[in-house]
Amino acid sequence: MRIIITVTLKDNVEDAEGQSVLKALRMLGYNEVSNVRTGKIYYIEMEGNDLSRGYEFCDKLLANPVINICKVEKNE
Amino acid sequence: MRIIITVTLKDNVEDAEGQSVLKALRMLGYNEVSNVRTGKIYYIEMEGNDLSRGYEFCDKLLANPVINICKVEKNE
Repeated sequence: MRIIITVTLKDNVEDAEGQSVLKALRMLGYNEVSNVRTGKIYYIEMEGNDLSRGYEFCDKLLANPVINICKVEKNE
Repeated sequence: MRIIITVTLKDNVEDAEGQSVLKALRMLGYNEVSNVRTGKIYYIEMEGNDLSRGYEFCDKLLANPVINICKVEKNE
């Protein structure tokens, strides 16, 4: 199966990269943009059919539970 | 509106970060994982209703057209 894991910052954690992108878009004249948040996305190919493995990958490697949220989806 | 922009590497571009994650997962014993590709995701809040702005942000700031692919979606 293929799974997609999205790792984002919790809402209450400041997103410095998002703020940089927001500033850059404003400097380019896009004043209609009000907020930018960023995250990482992982496309994982693996044998088996157990989506919970994705959460294990988050816990053990991809995310920091103090600041991150992990979303795991199947990508058929 | 809220848009989601996903920036990934083109298929023919080597993904060093993905390879690192793959190695790390294998070292953790997850031998069923066969491939990992990575990308960045941007959640953008803005006024207006013109999804094509997302592609402008890609062209002007977020992506390198030589190596990246950009996907722009509305997030209602």
